[in-house]
Amino acid sequence: FVSLLSSAIIVYRLPWTWKCSKLLMKFIHAGLNTIAMILAIVSMVAVFEFHNAKNIPNMYSLHSWIGLTAVIFYSLQLLLGFAVFLLPFAPVHLRVVLMPIHIYSGLTIFATVIATALMGITEKLIFSLKNPAYSASPPEATLVNCLGLLLVIFGSLVLWMASRPHWKRPPAENAKILRLNVATPEGTQVESTMTNSSNADKSDLRINTEAARKQNINFDEAGQRSTM
Amino acid sequence: FVSLLSSAIIVYRLPWTWKCSKLLMKFIHAGLNTIAMILAIVSMVAVFEFHNAKNIPNMYSLHSWIGLTAVIFYSLQLLLGFAVFLLPFAPVHLRVVLMPIHIYSGLTIFATVIATALMGITEKLIFSLKNPAYSASPPEATLVNCLGLLLVIFGSLVLWMASRPHWKRPPAENAKILRLNVATPEGTQVESTMTNSSNADKSDLRINTEAARKQNINFDEAGQRSTM
Repeated sequence: FVSLLSSAIIVYRLPWTWKCSKLLMKFIHAGLNTIAMILAIVSMVAVFEFHNAKNIPNMYSLHSWIGLTAVIFYSLQLLLGFAVFLLPFAPVHLRVVLMPIHIYSGLTIFATVIATALMGITEKLIFSLKNPAYSASPPEATLVNCLGLLLVIFGSLVLWMASRPHWKRPPAENAKILRLNVATPEGTQVESTMTNSSNADKSDLRINTEAARKQNINFDEAGQRSTM
Repeated sequence: FVSLLSSAIIVYRLPWTWKCSKLLMKFIHAGLNTIAMILAIVSMVAVFEFHNAKNIPNMYSLHSWIGLTAVIFYSLQLLLGFAVFLLPFAPVHLRVVLMPIHIYSGLTIFATVIATALMGITEKLIFSLKNPAYSASPPEATLVNCLGLLLVIFGSLVLWMASRPHWKRPPAENAKILRLNVATPEGTQVESTMTNSSNADKSDLRINTEAARKQNINFDEAGQRSTM
């Protein structure tokens, strides 16, 4: 589940995919997240059935509270992402406003899922290891602790990859122009502002310089790169 | 401890502090982190003494492993930050290279500390609540679960504040020039490149256009804003 989430997060960050069309990459991102969502629901149903079969109360622990919150936000994120970024109806300015929020909530949900997993591991080790107990550090405890530590390291690496600006997918329409126009920062900036605008809804094209500058900042946030 | 860490993280993000000198703000950032470090060490010593007094083994849980890792990285972060960003010896290009790493590790350590706290809360609730047990959801369990959920919400808000580009402290030397020169994005870009270079070590001033562009990207990452 975590590895599916991670693949979905870093799918735009693999340079060899920058040749593929943006739409294909969006489908892969949405598809991986949909599979992860299905797995999350299946595993939650399994937990409830396991609890009911063993007469363990449901939803009492902090692990379950934060886990359920993460799953609810994850399904909202999936629905909103589908409606705004995959379906062709949302205007560009809405996408521009929502993209930084989409990225932030995606990464925050990812970090919360890892924290939930760590709490789940802690619970499971305490409940399952009885003789010898968890506190006696049997080999199982050490092994699972190592897995938990690896989970943190893995999550940190994914967040590092997802937050490096130079690993962003270059905007498709700009790619060729940028190759011809790498002279000065101000040149690239203008070019990128212009190309970004050409993506925009025709009704949004009444832009003065101030608006263009702001839009340019927003497009930078929205996952486009104005330079390189 | 978490609130001290948070204050240290968002201290550059408070618009009313943008009038204060950069050096004063650095001292506040370093000071808050030093106090937090001292509290972390005091609380770790308290935990070890509590364990020894009650004959509980030390360092067996995932909570303790991840917590100790976080504290080790936190002390490295503090030492490196002090040596590179507070002492006047580090050359500007080193600061530029290390600033994105400093920001990333600071925020990752912060998230790891919250995950560690959540695991600690889970452990404590399981070990302390016996009659009625944690699974019977006594009022204490519900209360502490709510506190854990609030901790996640609080951490998410801090990470949101710390990752919004328009909440970045504007570079001091640019502030006046930018007020006079808000005409075009390319104008601002040039101005900022020039002013950033004027901060730089004199030996680094042999910049061609390509280098200036790259340096400009780096300065953007290093917490400077080229526009607004």
